[in-house]
Amino acid sequence: MHQLFATRAARMKASEIRELLKLLDQPGIISFAGGIPDPALFPAEAFGQAFQQALGADSRAQALQYSVSEGYMPLREWIAGHMRQIGVDCGPDDVLITSGSQQALDYLGKLFLSPGDTALVGWPTYLGALAAFNAYEPRFDRLRAGGNAGAAQYRAAAGPGAVKYAYLSPDFANPTGETVDRQGREALLDLAEELDCALIEDGAYQALRYDGQAIPPILALELARKGDLQACRTIYCGSFSKTLSPGLRVGWVVAARPVIAQLVLMKQAADLHSATINQMAVHQVAQTCFDSHIPKVRATYRARRDAMLAALERHMPEGVHWTRPEGGMFIWLTLPPGADGAQLLARALETVKVAFVPGQAFHPDGSGANTIRLSFSNSDEATIAEGIARLGAVLRG
Amino acid sequence: MHQLFATRAARMKASEIRELLKLLDQPGIISFAGGIPDPALFPAEAFGQAFQQALGADSRAQALQYSVSEGYMPLREWIAGHMRQIGVDCGPDDVLITSGSQQALDYLGKLFLSPGDTALVGWPTYLGALAAFNAYEPRFDRLRAGGNAGAAQYRAAAGPGAVKYAYLSPDFANPTGETVDRQGREALLDLAEELDCALIEDGAYQALRYDGQAIPPILALELARKGDLQACRTIYCGSFSKTLSPGLRVGWVVAARPVIAQLVLMKQAADLHSATINQMAVHQVAQTCFDSHIPKVRATYRARRDAMLAALERHMPEGVHWTRPEGGMFIWLTLPPGADGAQLLARALETVKVAFVPGQAFHPDGSGANTIRLSFSNSDEATIAEGIARLGAVLRG
Repeated sequence: MHQLFATRAARMKASEIRELLKLLDQPGIISFAGGIPDPALFPAEAFGQAFQQALGADSRAQALQYSVSEGYMPLREWIAGHMRQIGVDCGPDDVLITSGSQQALDYLGKLFLSPGDTALVGWPTYLGALAAFNAYEPRFDRLRAGGNAGAAQYRAAAGPGAVKYAYLSPDFANPTGETVDRQGREALLDLAEELDCALIEDGAYQALRYDGQAIPPILALELARKGDLQACRTIYCGSFSKTLSPGLRVGWVVAARPVIAQLVLMKQAADLHSATINQMAVHQVAQTCFDSHIPKVRATYRARRDAMLAALERHMPEGVHWTRPEGGMFIWLTLPPGADGAQLLARALETVKVAFVPGQAFHPDGSGANTIRLSFSNSDEATIAEGIARLGAVLRG
Repeated sequence: MHQLFATRAARMKASEIRELLKLLDQPGIISFAGGIPDPALFPAEAFGQAFQQALGADSRAQALQYSVSEGYMPLREWIAGHMRQIGVDCGPDDVLITSGSQQALDYLGKLFLSPGDTALVGWPTYLGALAAFNAYEPRFDRLRAGGNAGAAQYRAAAGPGAVKYAYLSPDFANPTGETVDRQGREALLDLAEELDCALIEDGAYQALRYDGQAIPPILALELARKGDLQACRTIYCGSFSKTLSPGLRVGWVVAARPVIAQLVLMKQAADLHSATINQMAVHQVAQTCFDSHIPKVRATYRARRDAMLAALERHMPEGVHWTRPEGGMFIWLTLPPGADGAQLLARALETVKVAFVPGQAFHPDGSGANTIRLSFSNSDEATIAEGIARLGAVLRG
């Protein structure tokens, strides 16, 4: 039947991370592969109470019934309050609930991209963003957070298509762990203005800062310039996946009304709405324990990041370099030129049972063969020390 | 920002049903509008236990964590067993879990349609299918379940594009309530073979038969011809929305492996997976009480259908015709030529506070102005009798 598939199907291939995850069921593997939260940190008791409450006599009919595509109003109100706390003045009507921020990326690709249009992305960038956008057959051009390329260059490269948006995760990005500083964020806003394109800000890791000074979201900086969310071209995507639970699939978008309105229509056509009861449960848990829960998550992951950085210092041979993230879940390693992350993975799995993600897949142009991504979020400090020691041994010999 | 939107955005407009639902908050309205299950029928106690169990110490880490894009294996096994009961011999690897069958329609449009390709649909057909497919910019051609048009005609009309699939809901379809008989199903299979296109079978209402003989799903008939699911071009979309709960957003697709494999990649790129805990809860409830629950649902809706048919008989003026569905949620009225369903709705809401859906929106070509859709699922018999009497009065004068 594949001869009937649309042209886009040819661009949708199995992800390396996914194939990798199948190996992780083997006993004894130390995995730094998936960007997976530690399930011990899920506020499971609070969710137990929240689901029970949603299914109580007063609200069960609502919890199990169809609901509006925009999302559950009390949750949208909570999110608007949360966004105001991080510097984005908005109200519930500026918020759309999505089934995780992955869905927001899919819908934004769908909203903006006709085949041949250009999406600016990092080299490397989040693999799931490339997968989501690929369905709409764009070309990718390299977004340099420092701002090396100018609007004219981007426009010339775009050819007959148009540059529709730049996508990035400015805080502790997947996969590099790097953060774009305030000046870099302002430069991106300048570029978006010059290009007259949208700017997709992926805030998936925003709440997971372990040290250093918080930097306002790009949307907050644009709001400060323009004074009105409705004039802003930045589209903020948020998620509860890294803070409360990924399995419930609840995320959100904050943007100017014409964008929200069109996304609502898209969501209505694509899956009607995100599960009602999950939105109610997330609202209840966010309201009662988000502020007390996040410090625990940060403390746990901070210690693991520190353990991984210390182990890298101790065990990596000369010529290997890595990022020192102020938050998030990832450290990005650059091996000596000519080294191959995929070959290293095969060797590491076979000889010392250590898993990670080779970096090439995060590069739309197939570069980055000598890079790898390590996640520290789902291993305790002793396991991290042991795993990095083993990896160092493989690299040295 | 709308100047940046992709061309598809122009085809995604607000649905009439959706705008209507906003009116239904008014006190005293009798609504036959939305195709909404009666929440009193949701197995809420069973769901309460199922969510509690999923969040118990043994499974909470799994319930709140990321999971695989294919869906929760025990649920896929239950669904495969259910499909075998209705005549489709398949296993769990032939099943993909989607966030409601609406998401299956979106993904199938995405999988098959490049701009200009043809989708064959009923005139009228399910509004949500048109909305889902519209995002991929097809042309629509009219599928005549009786089989008036031949493959050559369809192919000639398709022009430079190709006929990629025919879509229909063969049992008690939304909006007409009509069922395609066995001969009609076989004729559709013949047509799909001749056209070498896929056939999307929407089984959303399949379990809600109130009388008459069950007819095998089209996929079952094709399997009987070919003996092998992997050789079949029919893609079956199922849903728990009309049987257990729509708010949990759990549906499924059964199809040949190349289709399932590509849909899995699409789902991974579009929302990673459907909410883990919802799949676990639906599995638990389906396993423990699907078979005992469905007869209650059928009995309730059967009585409501009978009440509506009786009231129509009593109150409709001459020249109004309607379908006599053997199941589902809908009765379809054809008013005298020249009558206008939208004007009737405005008058009915204003003068007698009765709501329904004008039929034009279900027709891709804008015909059907003199048709309306009535849903009997979410009103008790007395309310149905009262509402139809009021509607008859408006129609009479």
